[in-house]
Amino acid sequence: MAKVKVYVTLKPTLLDAQGRVVQNALNNLGYEEVDGVRMGKYIEIELKDNGHSVQERVDEMCRKLLANPVIENYRFEVSD
Amino acid sequence: MAKVKVYVTLKPTLLDAQGRVVQNALNNLGYEEVDGVRMGKYIEIELKDNGHSVQERVDEMCRKLLANPVIENYRFEVSD
Repeated sequence: MAKVKVYVTLKPTLLDAQGRVVQNALNNLGYEEVDGVRMGKYIEIELKDNGHSVQERVDEMCRKLLANPVIENYRFEVSD
Repeated sequence: MAKVKVYVTLKPTLLDAQGRVVQNALNNLGYEEVDGVRMGKYIEIELKDNGHSVQERVDEMCRKLLANPVIENYRFEVSD
């Protein structure tokens, strides 16, 4: 059994509209020190052992389904 | 200037409908080893120095806006 944490973020060159909205909301709530917000996804995956390389399989999952490689970066950590 | 990484996850006792959909999609794509998926949010925040305690301010932001404490857990890491 392996546990994988995947982080998906928008590429830095792209405008993060959702992050901008959150930043404005925080500024308006009195948190004027907030200078930038980028929103991403955090995904926890549990995998049964089946002989495949966890690294390879999760990288494939990210490219095929979890992230959009055209506009997003991803990284992941395997534990257990 | 501080950089904060915030992780927001649904409380473990709650059904994660979005995660279930992703799990089914991965299983259908041939990743039968996927045994569980939980979806969360990953938020990067840049803060200017303004004399406030970063820990306290970000904890407040999480409770007020970034997470819903009724159904979500959050944790964050401060760097720089």
